[in-house]
Amino acid sequence: MFQPVKRKACGAKKINQPLTGNDFPLPAGFPSFMKLPIATSTEGLDACFVGVPMDNGTGYKPGARFAPREMRAESAIIRPCNPDTGAQPFTSLSVADIGDVPVNLFNVAKSCENIRESFNKIVKDGCVPLVMGGDHTITYPILQALGKKYGPLGVIYVDAHSDCAVSVAGERLTHSTSLRRAIEENFVDCKRVVQIGQRGTRVNVDPYQYEKDLGFRMIPAVDCWYKSLAPLMVEIREQMGTGPVYMSFCIDALDPAYAPGTGFPEIGGLTTIQAMEIIRGCKGLNMVGFEMDEVTPVYDSSGVTSATAGKLLYEMLCVVPSVKYAEK
Amino acid sequence: MFQPVKRKACGAKKINQPLTGNDFPLPAGFPSFMKLPIATSTEGLDACFVGVPMDNGTGYKPGARFAPREMRAESAIIRPCNPDTGAQPFTSLSVADIGDVPVNLFNVAKSCENIRESFNKIVKDGCVPLVMGGDHTITYPILQALGKKYGPLGVIYVDAHSDCAVSVAGERLTHSTSLRRAIEENFVDCKRVVQIGQRGTRVNVDPYQYEKDLGFRMIPAVDCWYKSLAPLMVEIREQMGTGPVYMSFCIDALDPAYAPGTGFPEIGGLTTIQAMEIIRGCKGLNMVGFEMDEVTPVYDSSGVTSATAGKLLYEMLCVVPSVKYAEK
Amino acid sequence: MFQPVKRKACGAKKINQPLTGNDFPLPAGFPSFMKLPIATSTEGLDACFVGVPMDNGTGYKPGARFAPREMRAESAIIRPCNPDTGAQPFTSLSVADIGDVPVNLFNVAKSCENIRESFNKIVKDGCVPLVMGGDHTITYPILQALGKKYGPLGVIYVDAHSDCAVSVAGERLTHSTSLRRAIEENFVDCKRVVQIGQRGTRVNVDPYQYEKDLGFRMIPAVDCWYKSLAPLMVEIREQMGTGPVYMSFCIDALDPAYAPGTGFPEIGGLTTIQAMEIIRGCKGLNMVGFEMDEVTPVYDSSGVTSATAGKLLYEMLCVVPSVKYAEK
Amino acid sequence: MFQPVKRKACGAKKINQPLTGNDFPLPAGFPSFMKLPIATSTEGLDACFVGVPMDNGTGYKPGARFAPREMRAESAIIRPCNPDTGAQPFTSLSVADIGDVPVNLFNVAKSCENIRESFNKIVKDGCVPLVMGGDHTITYPILQALGKKYGPLGVIYVDAHSDCAVSVAGERLTHSTSLRRAIEENFVDCKRVVQIGQRGTRVNVDPYQYEKDLGFRMIPAVDCWYKSLAPLMVEIREQMGTGPVYMSFCIDALDPAYAPGTGFPEIGGLTTIQAMEIIRGCKGLNMVGFEMDEVTPVYDSSGVTSATAGKLLYEMLCVVPSVKYAEK
Amino acid sequence: MFQPVKRKACGAKKINQPLTGNDFPLPAGFPSFMKLPIATSTEGLDACFVGVPMDNGTGYKPGARFAPREMRAESAIIRPCNPDTGAQPFTSLSVADIGDVPVNLFNVAKSCENIRESFNKIVKDGCVPLVMGGDHTITYPILQALGKKYGPLGVIYVDAHSDCAVSVAGERLTHSTSLRRAIEENFVDCKRVVQIGQRGTRVNVDPYQYEKDLGFRMIPAVDCWYKSLAPLMVEIREQMGTGPVYMSFCIDALDPAYAPGTGFPEIGGLTTIQAMEIIRGCKGLNMVGFEMDEVTPVYDSSGVTSATAGKLLYEMLCVVPSVKYAEK
Amino acid sequence: MFQPVKRKACGAKKINQPLTGNDFPLPAGFPSFMKLPIATSTEGLDACFVGVPMDNGTGYKPGARFAPREMRAESAIIRPCNPDTGAQPFTSLSVADIGDVPVNLFNVAKSCENIRESFNKIVKDGCVPLVMGGDHTITYPILQALGKKYGPLGVIYVDAHSDCAVSVAGERLTHSTSLRRAIEENFVDCKRVVQIGQRGTRVNVDPYQYEKDLGFRMIPAVDCWYKSLAPLMVEIREQMGTGPVYMSFCIDALDPAYAPGTGFPEIGGLTTIQAMEIIRGCKGLNMVGFEMDEVTPVYDSSGVTSATAGKLLYEMLCVVPSVKYAEK
Repeated sequence: MFQPVKRKACGAKKINQPLTGNDFPLPAGFPSFMKLPIATSTEGLDACFVGVPMDNGTGYKPGARFAPREMRAESAIIRPCNPDTGAQPFTSLSVADIGDVPVNLFNVAKSCENIRESFNKIVKDGCVPLVMGGDHTITYPILQALGKKYGPLGVIYVDAHSDCAVSVAGERLTHSTSLRRAIEENFVDCKRVVQIGQRGTRVNVDPYQYEKDLGFRMIPAVDCWYKSLAPLMVEIREQMGTGPVYMSFCIDALDPAYAPGTGFPEIGGLTTIQAMEIIRGCKGLNMVGFEMDEVTPVYDSSGVTSATAGKLLYEMLCVVPSVKYAEK
Repeated sequence: MFQPVKRKACGAKKINQPLTGNDFPLPAGFPSFMKLPIATSTEGLDACFVGVPMDNGTGYKPGARFAPREMRAESAIIRPCNPDTGAQPFTSLSVADIGDVPVNLFNVAKSCENIRESFNKIVKDGCVPLVMGGDHTITYPILQALGKKYGPLGVIYVDAHSDCAVSVAGERLTHSTSLRRAIEENFVDCKRVVQIGQRGTRVNVDPYQYEKDLGFRMIPAVDCWYKSLAPLMVEIREQMGTGPVYMSFCIDALDPAYAPGTGFPEIGGLTTIQAMEIIRGCKGLNMVGFEMDEVTPVYDSSGVTSATAGKLLYEMLCVVPSVKYAEK
Repeated sequence: MFQPVKRKACGAKKINQPLTGNDFPLPAGFPSFMKLPIATSTEGLDACFVGVPMDNGTGYKPGARFAPREMRAESAIIRPCNPDTGAQPFTSLSVADIGDVPVNLFNVAKSCENIRESFNKIVKDGCVPLVMGGDHTITYPILQALGKKYGPLGVIYVDAHSDCAVSVAGERLTHSTSLRRAIEENFVDCKRVVQIGQRGTRVNVDPYQYEKDLGFRMIPAVDCWYKSLAPLMVEIREQMGTGPVYMSFCIDALDPAYAPGTGFPEIGGLTTIQAMEIIRGCKGLNMVGFEMDEVTPVYDSSGVTSATAGKLLYEMLCVVPSVKYAEK
Repeated sequence: MFQPVKRKACGAKKINQPLTGNDFPLPAGFPSFMKLPIATSTEGLDACFVGVPMDNGTGYKPGARFAPREMRAESAIIRPCNPDTGAQPFTSLSVADIGDVPVNLFNVAKSCENIRESFNKIVKDGCVPLVMGGDHTITYPILQALGKKYGPLGVIYVDAHSDCAVSVAGERLTHSTSLRRAIEENFVDCKRVVQIGQRGTRVNVDPYQYEKDLGFRMIPAVDCWYKSLAPLMVEIREQMGTGPVYMSFCIDALDPAYAPGTGFPEIGGLTTIQAMEIIRGCKGLNMVGFEMDEVTPVYDSSGVTSATAGKLLYEMLCVVPSVKYAEK
Repeated sequence: MFQPVKRKACGAKKINQPLTGNDFPLPAGFPSFMKLPIATSTEGLDACFVGVPMDNGTGYKPGARFAPREMRAESAIIRPCNPDTGAQPFTSLSVADIGDVPVNLFNVAKSCENIRESFNKIVKDGCVPLVMGGDHTITYPILQALGKKYGPLGVIYVDAHSDCAVSVAGERLTHSTSLRRAIEENFVDCKRVVQIGQRGTRVNVDPYQYEKDLGFRMIPAVDCWYKSLAPLMVEIREQMGTGPVYMSFCIDALDPAYAPGTGFPEIGGLTTIQAMEIIRGCKGLNMVGFEMDEVTPVYDSSGVTSATAGKLLYEMLCVVPSVKYAEK
Repeated sequence: MFQPVKRKACGAKKINQPLTGNDFPLPAGFPSFMKLPIATSTEGLDACFVGVPMDNGTGYKPGARFAPREMRAESAIIRPCNPDTGAQPFTSLSVADIGDVPVNLFNVAKSCENIRESFNKIVKDGCVPLVMGGDHTITYPILQALGKKYGPLGVIYVDAHSDCAVSVAGERLTHSTSLRRAIEENFVDCKRVVQIGQRGTRVNVDPYQYEKDLGFRMIPAVDCWYKSLAPLMVEIREQMGTGPVYMSFCIDALDPAYAPGTGFPEIGGLTTIQAMEIIRGCKGLNMVGFEMDEVTPVYDSSGVTSATAGKLLYEMLCVVPSVKYAEK
């Protein structure tokens, strides 16, 4: 009765619109992402927001299971257009929030299975998922599903960590090992991988040998200090070419000043300006999915980490391939 | 796709069921109250949860506009049956969450109009609303709608304050004046009003003369100390008789130990045990609506105030007239 | 310009009134206690609110130095009359907030000197101080000043601890030793002392031998469980007789459920109802001063501890000897 | 009695000084801004701090009504001199804190009236107000008063938003529409307006057409990234000329890393260094008033947003026209 | 170098003593429980404090993995003697803190194995463990170890829930199913089980049929309202007889007013006074172990839940069989 | 029993290693710094972590007494190697956590004595202390001990303040006067002092005359804006020469965006990147001690300030003279 559903004519069809404060009071309503319509399948959708509220792959501070709920809540103030870039995602894309994947919070292995199966359905018709994690374990089953659909994927991995450990405390399914699992199963096109933002201490002094041997481009945080990353993205676009690309963005890539609400903060990280440059720099790539992980709301008293994650998800939406841009 | 809708056969029809942790992960999903199905009208519903996220009638600490969102979130762990009382609301009632009323957060008078009009629709076919306020201003337009439908109402008003001020700072539409406005418009059956839990300081030493002159039964908090309120409720049921009754419950009726997250805390208040006794004591009355107000999540760091409010709303659901009870 | 000063005619003079939400917006203005007028001396005052923002006598969690600020802020919603008891303090008493004593936050001994000298001035004409501590060290210099003015004092000491240690870690001026120092200097009339609410673990199993040997009446918390303390106060009034009495109330006398914001919480404490019974039970005694200590706002996220302390200070004001009461 | 008032000889008169930790303990005392003397009118004052604790023009997270209280509290550690710039405001200016305007927290329109009338008095003799908001609605009535006094004003508007909406949810008096109202009534000299820091999503992709058509200079946040704003301020000084100028600074102009405690945070904002460059760059302009808005303390757990706002207000004081500077 | 180890002569041996504020500054030092000596095995110990920092058996709000850390920190203010009961545990018992069991935070089944094996070692010589959980899953492996050592155990299970679910979301190892697993493996002497404090909603209206069929004594919370539980404990002591008894205490047995920092709060729970009555009522029983679960520090802003849990653990220590009591 | 002690062969001896998540669960165990072995003396140690949990030299927001506890807790995720710089401190240095100095929280003068005596022992055999303060008062007694051992010290003082006040409120031992005390006693080699990061308001407009007269190099924060500090450190290394150098780092040198949890935040401060540049720039100097002060955990809701302080302490460890570095 009370939450309007807004759709705008777009050629022959009417496409979903987010609600703004002019449409419905900002604090009110079921908090779907941007108060977009809620969908029960990806049928007819070009892109979808979807939560994966799992955090039992976390070795230290848990709580990312509540990240989708908070990102949705804080997304209430995001409006449809992007004046900085000219993107108008809701003039051409049909987008909805399809809710959360039924993760298993007691059993990591089963949770991964549930996620993989859910994503098999989500991507089967080419819908581009914008994933609200969850801890970073989820990248593994998501890449299984996307890799099965699209073949080995280019990956833009923005994270304070590289998540290519063989195991942690003897476990092979954790938030520190997920990318390695996906690589081992050949869902990753290793020449088309870039890792940006790695930093902090490690168990050995040359920690990225495995990644480098595979051909990853490594851009540790120290190489990002004091610079715009727009020039880097020119090179990354070249590296990625025309093949399918997945972006996995761990909120701890950001400096803790910008994202205090996460479980493994590392100082000397990226700024939100750099984060936007990275995402905006993906315009033109064949992006097939996006993921935002490790937001931990209970350590985020002001809500800024969830709000920031939500805004970056919106920026990701703006570089889904068929989005229309205004002339600048 | 991902949030199941659960319905149980009940005679000829299938009625809505809340989701439990067996049905869907507790932290996941769109947080409707108890993860009941979301409805867009009250058609076919015996009762509904509905939010009224307004707080611009508040003179001190605002923030109740976010109470429906938090009560819904914290309601995730409420399960369908009530072992203490034997109530099984979801075996006989058709219940849904119909979302939030489109309040006006800039203009109290217009907000009241919006609320009245929305409730005119909600109650027109006899659906019993379980209202998630909002500040206590909302009682006025809700009583306008219910009173229009049912005639003057008996009222069980549980609150630290009596909310019968003529005006506050010259304003007649505030959370301290709402009940008086409804009385003045004859929507209240003054012989069938009880106020429970009043306490704290006042601008004069005999503050309830107006209420007493109208014939209200006044049970200030000091008369509740150290006692079960079950015996009181026997008397209240007699007072209320068979006419329609509305319950308005301000969370500040509770002692701040039980409900810190509110804007006008007063020491020496009710316990949650007493609150349950009051609500459970309404079994058998002709309850036509319920309201839970003044939860202010931003002052509720542990979430217990929202959780408590949600559980009391569930207890209210259990005394909606046609709920079935197990033999004890 | 903007904060009105309200005075009411009372016989020949006009006496200070607190501001309510009808007089000035509740969140606005310089937060004197109850927004009473600010005075620069006690001249002409029957009672005064005064802060002693010292906490360097604290061995564990500091922060009580900010308690006067927060109690004043949270006192904004206290109104002039007390319907429960009929007290109307502002019809007969001239009251103001005289600000804070210039404590020394680097040096406990000097701080005590400053406090003693300030209280010598405050009480010289018989003004009754309502003290917003500060940690419990302050009782020592305050009793020095009051004892000098009035002779040895009866003391109603409500606290989880008895504060009669010889020393702590070799130090003799701490919040655990203050009462002993005052006793040793003969400012306390030991036959007219009652300690209420003591509990928790101690360094020996019979911890109150010193107090009992001096003739104190000891009412540990365990003797208060499940009971009204009104009957106890009948006995205490007899014990106190007509001599001058000082009340020292440590917020940790309350159970942590009611007062989480303090540095040494102990479970199994008093309720706020019992606290009001104790204070209200002092009506008729020759009360010469009151003190509220150990509120630690930074551990009090909802503000309820400061709010509770403020309301209890108001209850103390209501039992200042010459307050007028309405007929009940 | 206890809070010293400090005044320094300055030619023939003695002018007000703030208190430092050498004068009075930092946590102690009535928290006027910088513990300056409290004044009841602007008579004899060159500049004044004044609060406007209104937030009912807020569509999302309320709470700015408590901002003046917290800014004053956190201003305790600001000292009189500014070594970076050489400013010594208290050697030449007579400054006081005049308290808060009596806003109406239930009614935006009446609140605006109250503010306008209060500011008519404040500015009538040329006192420069340093305003502690409040939500951004307050700019409208303040500009009415200043515009009436000085004629159309140049405006330096530092904000994440441009606040020139026609209406929000049908309402014309909100924190998103205030500047437009002032423009419509000709209190703004549109050729002498600069807006700095705008960013984030909007309802259309070219959101500043209205502003540009009026001749505003627009410096969106994206144009500020990675740069000192000192050079910009050279140009702004030229744009402003010698006419009267008002600065309206919304704390959300800052990046949420610097100012988490606000209701509409937007990533990619200004740094506090840039904020200081903007304010310091106003030296030499004919500044007639300053305003700091939208601090929302309840979302600011560490107090840094209020502290930052207070320090920026101090920097504003340093560029009041007649302030004396040390030789560098 | 800096943290003294304190031991007291006790007959021929010197036994460990906790440190008080007289021995070492309260905020200082490695936070072992009560700053007892740290031991690396249970050799020579009569009782030990041990943490089991696992929470991956939690379906809703995680974080109990940090409970041992916070309970230890907050235990700094517990002193050796118990004046209420006369218990002097450190005059006869040799006690130490042996640290934490190496749980597996990624894999519940392996974590249970690790716990079982660790407890096999802990109890092999009769040392009585005082366990700092962790979520309630841990009861299962602990009962496996204790049951193996002592035979089927009497159990005093104080909890808002009965934790006898067959499974949750298809999983058999969770915090809601742990007691059932231990029963199925015959480690529980079902005639000697009491469950106290159950309440809240359930998936069916007669939820304790399984428990009752096994012969458990069920004391739901509703039967505890308004009463001392001392009389109940007389009956429980009779029920338990002379056989070995284990106490499992979930902090959510307490009302949320007393213990807000937990993941599944239920209103209408026990008071801390009742909790102490239950524990103190175990004096004289053949207690072989104790457990305190589900404290979730990140939802406990004031630290009172951890502090309360620590104090209850101390009370448990006081009823370890050979503790000496002072004459009363 | 449960917390492994890890040592690695290094030539003839086995040297201490920190525990990682592969060795022991991250949330588990006694939180020594990096879960290094706990030592009771500095015998055989090249460097040690040591806490000085004193904060009674603080004039405003206390709480730094809990900083060592929180830094240790948050250090759990620091791993042994430093990929950015190649440092491998645990391949050559023998390091342990030796606990906390027995400060006196009631008496600043005695506390300073205790600290001095403790540090006399710590440094007597050349062990390099990495100090976890505590408020900045502690620098004075630490410099007394180090100066006595090594002669007058070069000092790299990174702080928002210069801490060379003669006195505060008449007191000579405070956190604002400590460096001056050490200078007066000739423990500082004034030609080899640099102060970096000073900013904010002061009581006079040229506040560093004393420091400059002594020959200090002053690098106020304004000179650090928008720049890498690596070039500065080349000059500082030259200034320091080969003599012994002490680093005193106040967390408020950082901008509040990076370190909100401190008592005297000042805007416009250093970034964590600049902090790392400063510390890393000390490689090659004859560093004899390091200190990290003024972290105030209770104002640090997300824990990032403590985490940041811990990581900077680790960076300091990496520049202890004999640390081995990998080839880059």
